[in-house]
Amino acid sequence: MLAETLAAIRPADPAAVAEARAHQDRLTKPRGSLGALEEIAIRLAGAAGACPPPMPAPAALAIFAADHGVHARGVTPWPQEVTVQMVANFLAGGAVANAFAAQAGVSVTVVDVGVAADLPDAAGLIKHKIGYGTADLSQGPAMTVDQAVRGLEAGIAVARDLVASGIRCLITGDMGIANTTASAALISVFTGKDPAEVTGRGTGIDDETHARKVDVVRESLRANGLPADVSSASEALRVLAAVGGYEHAAIAGFILGGAAARVPVILDGVIAGAAALVAAALDPAAPDHCVAGHRSAEPGHAAALAHLGLRPLVDLEMRLGEGTGGLLAHPMVCAAVRVMHDVATFDSAGVTEKPE
Amino acid sequence: MLAETLAAIRPADPAAVAEARAHQDRLTKPRGSLGALEEIAIRLAGAAGACPPPMPAPAALAIFAADHGVHARGVTPWPQEVTVQMVANFLAGGAVANAFAAQAGVSVTVVDVGVAADLPDAAGLIKHKIGYGTADLSQGPAMTVDQAVRGLEAGIAVARDLVASGIRCLITGDMGIANTTASAALISVFTGKDPAEVTGRGTGIDDETHARKVDVVRESLRANGLPADVSSASEALRVLAAVGGYEHAAIAGFILGGAAARVPVILDGVIAGAAALVAAALDPAAPDHCVAGHRSAEPGHAAALAHLGLRPLVDLEMRLGEGTGGLLAHPMVCAAVRVMHDVATFDSAGVTEKPE
Repeated sequence: MLAETLAAIRPADPAAVAEARAHQDRLTKPRGSLGALEEIAIRLAGAAGACPPPMPAPAALAIFAADHGVHARGVTPWPQEVTVQMVANFLAGGAVANAFAAQAGVSVTVVDVGVAADLPDAAGLIKHKIGYGTADLSQGPAMTVDQAVRGLEAGIAVARDLVASGIRCLITGDMGIANTTASAALISVFTGKDPAEVTGRGTGIDDETHARKVDVVRESLRANGLPADVSSASEALRVLAAVGGYEHAAIAGFILGGAAARVPVILDGVIAGAAALVAAALDPAAPDHCVAGHRSAEPGHAAALAHLGLRPLVDLEMRLGEGTGGLLAHPMVCAAVRVMHDVATFDSAGVTEKPE
Repeated sequence: MLAETLAAIRPADPAAVAEARAHQDRLTKPRGSLGALEEIAIRLAGAAGACPPPMPAPAALAIFAADHGVHARGVTPWPQEVTVQMVANFLAGGAVANAFAAQAGVSVTVVDVGVAADLPDAAGLIKHKIGYGTADLSQGPAMTVDQAVRGLEAGIAVARDLVASGIRCLITGDMGIANTTASAALISVFTGKDPAEVTGRGTGIDDETHARKVDVVRESLRANGLPADVSSASEALRVLAAVGGYEHAAIAGFILGGAAARVPVILDGVIAGAAALVAAALDPAAPDHCVAGHRSAEPGHAAALAHLGLRPLVDLEMRLGEGTGGLLAHPMVCAAVRVMHDVATFDSAGVTEKPE
């Protein structure tokens, strides 16, 4: 399923990109006056291979939830049970992601890929559990390569099912106490930056905990013999297994599944950024199908986005995760594409163009 | 009408602000994790004098259109007829503002406060014409103080009528070829910054035109004996009349009308920023009712926002006007307020709070 998905991914279509760029310049607005939004519309045209690109709606948020063995190292003051409690909160509609999704008209699906407890069946919950939390990445591999592949395939399956149900835009979400630690380790390996540069304060930790978190990330690279040469897909898989989380694997798969279906993926924050680095290492064309929803307050996120060549749409010092940044960006992405569909040209509207 | 409106404006309610801040900290999210969006929700609670503040919906965009005598000085390559042509484009639904408004579910009203032509009646067009374009501000006052007051009152009337029809959020929009020149002059006077620092390239002008535009702004201050002491409302009116446009007067009135009704006003770009400086000079509590929708590429806009103490939500190098930046921000403002209404508290959701 992974190989088949990778084989289906195409890079941005240069003809559609060129057509979209030329169309932007014919619309009744000064050239370039929509700034970064023009680039988003052009990007989605390239991803879809069509100008104008299809409207990225309806959209679906998938929140991939999992636990992390590294929690035992004291990298966060939040107890691990909060992962399960927040899954219940999502399913009851009480979290910020639910409020933002309701505002944007986006559906919410929660996917258990590795929560450290058995969850009761519930509407809106999909079970693809790979384990009850990962192993402690600071002591050795967080998961096996086989588990990493199963995580990727869980994400691909969720993306496929959503697209098959008519969804035309995927938004990544995550829940997992301690998952910014795994994200920092992934980002350090894939960008080559030192752990101290890419390890942040997550949900808000004090100086002592932050220093411990940086040390734990550094230990995880040493214990797993990383940074490895990640020039091959098999090495990327080994890195993901060594220091990733089940949700990182699944979100990487979710991105690949969207890319294979030519349905755009709006990335949320640092967890999605780390997962997108994995997806990009598995297929360099995957980021062509992604939009960076926002830039979180985590320092590693900016490093990941720079490495991916993505410019974030929202930049409001948010650091919540759950998909909240991606959800805020969705109406903007729709607005950018709608311009390509609805706006008159200088010719059609009889508006005089600026003399050159 | 102006005096009555100013008398009705109240500053932010400190009790509602404190209650909103405390409520944010009880919600199921790490404290502060929604960054600037938390401040928006708290701000709107203060403006409304209620926690949670009412949802800022439905919203209405009002595009105030006018022409400018200073166009004759060659400050822009676009012909003046484009103002009329774009009004027709708005009314036909073909402009970017229409596409963004459709995306956000916001109504669009066009208000002729000073277009240099007679416009045919049309659905969605309100006529409050004060003149056929202003006089050339570089030669003397752009309008009389009486015209400036009529412009303010036109904006107040539009705000009142929209609020009376059930609108709970106002979004400013503008159309007027050459209106960034008048904006730069207003911003220079109210912020005390040199014209060279606050005069930008508008819709995109070359170096020679930009240099002329800076000179014209400088001349306008000299010809009108400005910067004056703008410590009084009467001096603010004189500055508005001297170097403003009819749409600046009307947008300032629109802001005051929203503030008086305790209905929040989302400001668009540099024209709204200049108008908000006028509103703030007339009543220092007016900005308490405003949200900065975005930061445009115009340098004067950042100066205006800093002076007003407002942080923009969207920052994507847009420079189109029409209300496009305000429209993009509206779903985010709704999302920020919806959090206060919908999200569970740690207690209600049974989520364990982070130990202090």
